Amino acid sequence: MGPGATPEAIEREAPRPPDALAGLLGADLDAVDAIIHQRLSSSVTLIPDLAAYLIDAGGKRVRPMITLAAAHALGGANDATRMLAAAVEFIHTATLLHDDVVDESSLRRGRVSAHRVWGNSASVLVGDFLFARSFTLMVDADDLAVLAVLSNASSTIAEGEVLQLSSANDASASLDHYMRIISAKTAALFAAAARVGAMSTKCTPAEADAFETYGRNLGLAFQLVDDALDYGGASAVMGKNLGDDFREGKITLPVILARETGDDEERAFWARVMGGGEHRPADFEHALAILRKRNSITRTLDFARVYANAARDALGAMPDTIWRTTLVELVDFVVDRAH
Amino acid sequence: MGPGATPEAIEREAPRPPDALAGLLGADLDAVDAIIHQRLSSSVTLIPDLAAYLIDAGGKRVRPMITLAAAHALGGANDATRMLAAAVEFIHTATLLHDDVVDESSLRRGRVSAHRVWGNSASVLVGDFLFARSFTLMVDADDLAVLAVLSNASSTIAEGEVLQLSSANDASASLDHYMRIISAKTAALFAAAARVGAMSTKCTPAEADAFETYGRNLGLAFQLVDDALDYGGASAVMGKNLGDDFREGKITLPVILARETGDDEERAFWARVMGGGEHRPADFEHALAILRKRNSITRTLDFARVYANAARDALGAMPDTIWRTTLVELVDFVVDRAH
Repeated sequence: MGPGATPEAIEREAPRPPDALAGLLGADLDAVDAIIHQRLSSSVTLIPDLAAYLIDAGGKRVRPMITLAAAHALGGANDATRMLAAAVEFIHTATLLHDDVVDESSLRRGRVSAHRVWGNSASVLVGDFLFARSFTLMVDADDLAVLAVLSNASSTIAEGEVLQLSSANDASASLDHYMRIISAKTAALFAAAARVGAMSTKCTPAEADAFETYGRNLGLAFQLVDDALDYGGASAVMGKNLGDDFREGKITLPVILARETGDDEERAFWARVMGGGEHRPADFEHALAILRKRNSITRTLDFARVYANAARDALGAMPDTIWRTTLVELVDFVVDRAH
Repeated sequence: MGPGATPEAIEREAPRPPDALAGLLGADLDAVDAIIHQRLSSSVTLIPDLAAYLIDAGGKRVRPMITLAAAHALGGANDATRMLAAAVEFIHTATLLHDDVVDESSLRRGRVSAHRVWGNSASVLVGDFLFARSFTLMVDADDLAVLAVLSNASSTIAEGEVLQLSSANDASASLDHYMRIISAKTAALFAAAARVGAMSTKCTPAEADAFETYGRNLGLAFQLVDDALDYGGASAVMGKNLGDDFREGKITLPVILARETGDDEERAFWARVMGGGEHRPADFEHALAILRKRNSITRTLDFARVYANAARDALGAMPDTIWRTTLVELVDFVVDRAH
């Protein structure tokens, strides 16, 4: 990965991630893709058109890969695992469609956002369709316990999104508040993806808990790295897709850390630029300079590393297989993106 | 109900419908309301604030009443019935929140729409939350067969909404197309509400089918009457809440029937006013005059009566109880709203 590459740029490099996990999962991932496209079908053609536009744009399928690999690590993926992996991707895609409407984002996975092509209304309603279909998939996977996990994750995601929305432009947001948001909006689905993969093998409660812990910590590391990448990552090289959070007034950890250790002038700067008013041309570069001075990208990535370590540790008691090794490598990949 | 009252005006008259069904269901409805408010709770206070604003605005709870009454008609409502009734109301409320964003409606149940108070983003995300929570409620009701019915209904509703969206402003929409939209966006949830109420009693497949048929036909009659009421109903008295469909370019049965039997001048009028362009001040009154001339409100209500009869007939083989009688009276109430 090039220095300073944004998540979008990384996702665009290849339609399928070039890492070991995707290679190992080959046939399973193809099966999940087949389920996804089959369950997208509707006589209302706008639905598969819009949904496939986003789904086929080259997302890395990180979440369904976690579901599949968790099952393999505990004995093997089955039909239920593959349906649950597809359900997880449906929930994720529905969330992306609604997020882009909420954030008024113009780009997603290197393409013009769906709502800019078909309008906000279509994105909202097709998101609803995907969300409903994800539950039909879960019903077909035939396990109420798994449905409980994913329906709880879904309401937690919505809570996280609302929390983020209601605290946008509040430059005084705390570290705790930020962690609460990313636990809900990102880590909850990673945790559920791993847990339901494990559960699909009829594993022990301790094994399900271990994979949930893996997923939750991986999700936290993933979001922390994403938020560091929005300011250029460790190298802080300017790139064309940087600064989305900055422009939208989303207060993420780099800003929180810089603000906490900043002087009065810097705090006034953050209050102005994150407070929702008009930006001046040099604001973003000035923000990057403060982040460098306060070392806050590095410190954000230190947080990511702590959660990454917790994710690795969670799998310590799991059987020593190629799947465990590869799930650990996925953690490294997530953190290394920022360097 | 006063002549020409709109659905909003009817819903506003009393916080609890004054009909026999609500009276019979008293304690059950209170229990459902308690479940609804308990499941709305979230530490993210914007969620219960926004959701309760809509839920407590005096909706008639028609769908959960159908769920409860179907169960009583087959032996009695239980905890699962009440949870499913709450889940049905959650799905309905989520749909209303997203609908109001899609339609840019400014009024709902006689109040300023939630999205006008809290913004589109909050309405989208709180709708997602309610939708997710509806599935948690279904999981607690502990029956996968019921989950299948409601998840299928949810994706059908979204399909109906997308279909309506993609054919808005198409003045040449056919009767078939219209019926397909209202079957999906309205009748699917009425059908599911009745079916899952029946299923919660562990009824026979024939009984579940009978209640589903009842719900579907009642839903169709309900929507047809709503669409007639948007043009003033049988009396065609002008009221301040009329004409939402007309202004939004939603092609409903009154217009389809008028257009089919209209002359060239009238067809040109419908093409212009439903086609999405600017309206002239006298357009709506001219539309009402054509609808009167072509008798299309009456003919729309004739359709409603056919479906209402089918709803009544569906319960013909059910046990002769006060519940069956009252469910039949609910059909009469739905149709009589328009007179």
